[in-house]
Amino acid sequence: MSLISNSLTRVFKNVAVTAAACLALVATGATAADKVYRLKLAETWGPNFPVFGDATKNMAAMAEKMSNGRLQIRIDSANKHKAPLGVFDMVKSGQYDMGHSGSYYWKGKVPNTLYFTSMPFGMTPAEQYAWFYHGGGMELMEQVYSPHNLMSFPGGNTDIQMGGWFQKEINSVEDLQGLKMRIPGFAGEILAELGAKPTNIAPGELYTSLERRTIDALEWVGPSLDLRMGFHKIAPYYYTGWHEPGSELQFLVNKRTWNKLPEDLQEILRVAMRTAAYDMYTQATHESGKNWVSTVSYTHLTLPTIYSV
Amino acid sequence: MSLISNSLTRVFKNVAVTAAACLALVATGATAADKVYRLKLAETWGPNFPVFGDATKNMAAMAEKMSNGRLQIRIDSANKHKAPLGVFDMVKSGQYDMGHSGSYYWKGKVPNTLYFTSMPFGMTPAEQYAWFYHGGGMELMEQVYSPHNLMSFPGGNTDIQMGGWFQKEINSVEDLQGLKMRIPGFAGEILAELGAKPTNIAPGELYTSLERRTIDALEWVGPSLDLRMGFHKIAPYYYTGWHEPGSELQFLVNKRTWNKLPEDLQEILRVAMRTAAYDMYTQATHESGKNWVSTVSYTHLTLPTIYSV
Repeated sequence: MSLISNSLTRVFKNVAVTAAACLALVATGATAADKVYRLKLAETWGPNFPVFGDATKNMAAMAEKMSNGRLQIRIDSANKHKAPLGVFDMVKSGQYDMGHSGSYYWKGKVPNTLYFTSMPFGMTPAEQYAWFYHGGGMELMEQVYSPHNLMSFPGGNTDIQMGGWFQKEINSVEDLQGLKMRIPGFAGEILAELGAKPTNIAPGELYTSLERRTIDALEWVGPSLDLRMGFHKIAPYYYTGWHEPGSELQFLVNKRTWNKLPEDLQEILRVAMRTAAYDMYTQATHESGKNWVSTVSYTHLTLPTIYSV
Repeated sequence: MSLISNSLTRVFKNVAVTAAACLALVATGATAADKVYRLKLAETWGPNFPVFGDATKNMAAMAEKMSNGRLQIRIDSANKHKAPLGVFDMVKSGQYDMGHSGSYYWKGKVPNTLYFTSMPFGMTPAEQYAWFYHGGGMELMEQVYSPHNLMSFPGGNTDIQMGGWFQKEINSVEDLQGLKMRIPGFAGEILAELGAKPTNIAPGELYTSLERRTIDALEWVGPSLDLRMGFHKIAPYYYTGWHEPGSELQFLVNKRTWNKLPEDLQEILRVAMRTAAYDMYTQATHESGKNWVSTVSYTHLTLPTIYSV
């Protein structure tokens, strides 16, 4: 090989090396800035579930738009994952990255999870948010969920809930004896003490359970959601509430998933969950107001002596 | 020039062109993804102002972190821009990109701005957020602010406000005659009808105005903020409220600034403002609860007949 040919070869090699380095640089730049993180979320609710389901969709849409598409959250409803009350386990194990559910559904696993939804005669929504964010609530929630490889965040407030739908009038403690009622959380424990038989049932099975008399009564939410569930067609008595003055749903995040996200996407996810939670409270207030008139016209709406403490 | 030398020159030129193109590509990539947008915000409040000032800091911090530093918002307090009640004009003209203030401060310019803060015997905070986001409130606010080259967003709720601090006991409408009181918004119009002399004064001048008797009374917010202002040291009577059941502050954005932002930063800014507003409501609730006991112990806290309607 001649000297000239040698030096030409070197030059060509240089061009190739420069071009390769250049492409690598562009590619690296693209990877760091544009890597797409795809997360899967399991929700306790069925598909297109009003208000609760809107909260997950709202959260995912904000996260995607704020991240310019770098954070994509796929939502699987209960019809897909078939385990509406298995969300805790599925996010803990990493089968899902995220969940949307209610903390008090896990009282059988960890009794302290009760406090992060609502407690009878407890806090209003505004008081509860104040407690979460300024009164040490988030820190206590972290203590409860961290050993399970989970992070938990407020997931939307229903505002004060109605006491529930009953087939028969309740006038005394005697009327509660043996009454099979869907009522989760600490309120269920109280009703058990009074002689009722409380149980929890996934939202998708509530209507048929009450219709087929598998249960005698149920509480679900309030005017914001109950009319759309059709309970007024199959139970004439609707009592005011005492048991959940401001029920807060829950976003769950698998800790390993969280730790894999870059800091900006962690903040985008945190803020998207926080806003979606507040937004659900706002939406529930709106829906309750809108539906209140028709609720009253459909039902016997009274406050029985047993509930006036 | 020989053929070989010619072709070597060409090759070197190619290297140079490749390298230049490559650098340009990297630079372009960097520009699109990392261009920093620096916005200036003027707030009505003084520096380190509690609760209200926390809302702007919270908003700016979320926006910066979610955007990975691409959105930087500098906050100028009233001591800097010297125009606490000039925020509307400064954002309208583009002197500032953003503002944080109260919509009802602009009633002299546009009476319809009154509705977006609070109205006497009007909505609670939850109802007001429901109205903004689901009941057409945002659309009406856009109609009012758009002709002024402005966008307005909820900026944090104080919860129901106290009726104010008075030097003397108020027992009848006669006691209001000629009473010089700082009370903005529609409530001021009502007090004027009753014979008082309402006025608005920038927050930074409230204490000295009351101390030097330039005014006889003032309403500011409630336990969340009033004690830190020291009003209990100079006015013994503190009356409960009727005039602002859920006062919502306001973020203003200059429309040209908004339109310059890429879509992901618009969404980051929108969500940061929305969350900061909700967060302030939560914080105000917390601060009110914490300060309530000492408020009661400092003051004559009564509900005069004139206010029981």
